Amino acid sequence: MAQNTSRTIIAVDALGGDFAPQVVLDGAELALQRDADIQILMVGPADTVEPFAANHTRVRAIPTTQVIAMDEHPAAAVRSKKDSSIVVCARLVKEGAAQATFSAGSTGACLAAATLVTGRIKGVKRPALAVILPGARPTVLIDNGANADCKPEYLVQFAEMGRAYAQAALGVEQPRIALLSIGEEDSKGNQLVLDAHALLRQQTAGFIGNVEGRDILAGAADVIVCDGFTGNVVLKTLEGTLKFLLGKVKGAMTASTTSKLAALVLKGNMGALKDELDPDQYGAAPLLGVNGLCLVGHGSSNARAIASGILVGARAVRGGVTDRITEALSR
Amino acid sequence: MAQNTSRTIIAVDALGGDFAPQVVLDGAELALQRDADIQILMVGPADTVEPFAANHTRVRAIPTTQVIAMDEHPAAAVRSKKDSSIVVCARLVKEGAAQATFSAGSTGACLAAATLVTGRIKGVKRPALAVILPGARPTVLIDNGANADCKPEYLVQFAEMGRAYAQAALGVEQPRIALLSIGEEDSKGNQLVLDAHALLRQQTAGFIGNVEGRDILAGAADVIVCDGFTGNVVLKTLEGTLKFLLGKVKGAMTASTTSKLAALVLKGNMGALKDELDPDQYGAAPLLGVNGLCLVGHGSSNARAIASGILVGARAVRGGVTDRITEALSR
Repeated sequence: MAQNTSRTIIAVDALGGDFAPQVVLDGAELALQRDADIQILMVGPADTVEPFAANHTRVRAIPTTQVIAMDEHPAAAVRSKKDSSIVVCARLVKEGAAQATFSAGSTGACLAAATLVTGRIKGVKRPALAVILPGARPTVLIDNGANADCKPEYLVQFAEMGRAYAQAALGVEQPRIALLSIGEEDSKGNQLVLDAHALLRQQTAGFIGNVEGRDILAGAADVIVCDGFTGNVVLKTLEGTLKFLLGKVKGAMTASTTSKLAALVLKGNMGALKDELDPDQYGAAPLLGVNGLCLVGHGSSNARAIASGILVGARAVRGGVTDRITEALSR
Repeated sequence: MAQNTSRTIIAVDALGGDFAPQVVLDGAELALQRDADIQILMVGPADTVEPFAANHTRVRAIPTTQVIAMDEHPAAAVRSKKDSSIVVCARLVKEGAAQATFSAGSTGACLAAATLVTGRIKGVKRPALAVILPGARPTVLIDNGANADCKPEYLVQFAEMGRAYAQAALGVEQPRIALLSIGEEDSKGNQLVLDAHALLRQQTAGFIGNVEGRDILAGAADVIVCDGFTGNVVLKTLEGTLKFLLGKVKGAMTASTTSKLAALVLKGNMGALKDELDPDQYGAAPLLGVNGLCLVGHGSSNARAIASGILVGARAVRGGVTDRITEALSR
C-alpha cells in the first residue's frame, strides 16, 4: 500500500450513459482490476454508489441527489443542478479531490460543467475535444466537436493541446502536427484553414503542413487539427464506415456454407482486427484546456468502453497533460 | 443504326489523368462496348486521337495542340490555352456538339473550363461537384470540393441540383434530402449549417433534416448536402477508411497458412465486396449547374474507372439532369 499517495484519482459519473448505472459500475470495476494505481470517486445516488464503495477498497462514494437528462439545455442544467453527478464531478476536480472526471452522459453538460465549474486553463481560448484514432498508428484528432465554429487562432491552440495529449497519452515526444484540409498544397482549403495554415507555419513546432481525409488512418501525422464541426463529421464518418464495412465483410463470409466454414477458421484473426479498430478501445474523448481532465464517453458505452475511458484518463493524468498545456499556452 | 440520332455524345479529354492517354483510350473503348448508344469525341493530340477514331466507328477525333498541366493555375491556364484538350471539351458542350465532357485531368482546370467556357445555368450561384457513394443504397453527396467556402443559399441550390442528379442518375423520383451536421437535432451544427437548415426547411421539398457522418453509408438519405470543404474531407475519409480496412482484412486473412486457405475460399465473396465498394465503379464526379455535364475523374483512374465515368455521364444526360436543374433553379 506504499504507493497510495501517488494514486490517480478519477471522479466517475455513475449516471452517465444509456446503460447507467450498472454498466458504469462494471466498467469501473474492470478499470480497478486493470490498474492498481487508480482510485475512483463514484458520484451518483447514494443507493447506487454506497454499496459499490463498500465492496471496493479503492472506491469512495460521493452521493448526489440530482440528475441532468440528455435533452436538457447544458449550461442551464449545469447552473441550476449543483448537486447533479456531472456538476459534482467537475467540482471535485476544481477542488483538487480528483484529477480527472469521466462521464458517458450528455456531452454538452459535461463540456458546460468542465468550462463553468472546473474552469479553463489560463490563456486557453476554447477547450477542445481530442480523440485517439486507431489507424496505422494512433493519431490524435482535435477538435472533434466542442467548437463548431472556430477562428484560426483556436486551431493554433488545438495544435498545442493536441501535442500535449500525444506526449502524455501516447508517449510521442515530438509529435508531427498536421492541419486537415482538402489538398496537400498550402493553398488548398477553406478560408479558416488557409488562415490557420499561415499561423501554424509561423508558430507551431513540428507542423508538417496539410493532410487530407485519406491520410487520417494512414499514420501521416501524430496530431491532426481541425475545427469541431469537421472533426465530428470525420469521427462519425469513420465510425459509420467501419461499421458498414465490417457488416459487409461478415456478409461475404456467411454467404454460403463453404464460406461460413472458412470464416470460422478466420474468426480469431477477424476478431483481433475488430478489437484493434474498435473505438471503444479508446473509450473516451478528453476535453483539453480545462484545469483538470474531463473525459467524455459515448452514450452507448459498454463496460469495456467505460473502463478504457477511465484508464485513458489515468494515463493522460500521469503523463501530465494539464501541466503541459498550461506551460504551452501561458507563455 | 436507326437509333443513331439519339446517341449520347461525350467529349473525352485524351490527356486527362496520371496514365493518359493509353488508359483513357482503353476506358473509352470499354465504354463503347458497354453502351451501344454513346458516341465519343476524343479530344487530344492528333497522333493519339486520329488512329483511335480510325479504328472505332462511334468515335470522332478532335485534334488539339495544347496541354494544361496538373500544377498550372486553373483559371489562367483555361484563359490562355484555348486549344488545350480541357478547354476544347468544354467548348464542344457549349456549342452543342457534345452533351457532356469527361476528364481525369486537373480538377481545378475542368471546373474553370466548365464555368468560364461552357457557362453556368441561369440562376445557379455556384456549380457543385456531386458524387454517388456506394453504401446501403447509392447516395448523392454534394458538394464534394468545388466550393470550399459556402453561403447558406448555396446549400439550398446544392439540394436542388442533388435532387436532379438523383432523379436522372439513380432514378429516384422523390429523393429524400438531408443536411450533413453533427447531430440530428435542428439546433446542431456550425453557423452555416444552422442557417442552411432553416432555409432548407422553408424551401426544399423532401427535406428530412440533419444526418450525421455515421449515417452517410447507412442509406439514411438519397441526397446529402454539405459545403465543399466538408464534402471533400468526407469523401477522402471514406476512401482512406475503405483502403485501410480492406488492407487490414487482407492482413488478417493471410496471417497463417490455415487462414490463407480459408481466405482462398472467401476470395470470390470478398472480391465481389471490393467491387461493390470500389469508388471506381462510379468513375467520376459531375460538376452540376453548368450548361451541360462536366465529369471529373480521379487522376489515378484506371480504364475501368474511365469507362464508368463516361457511362455515368451518359446516364445522367439521358435522365435530363441539366434540364431538371434549369427548371428547378430558373423559377
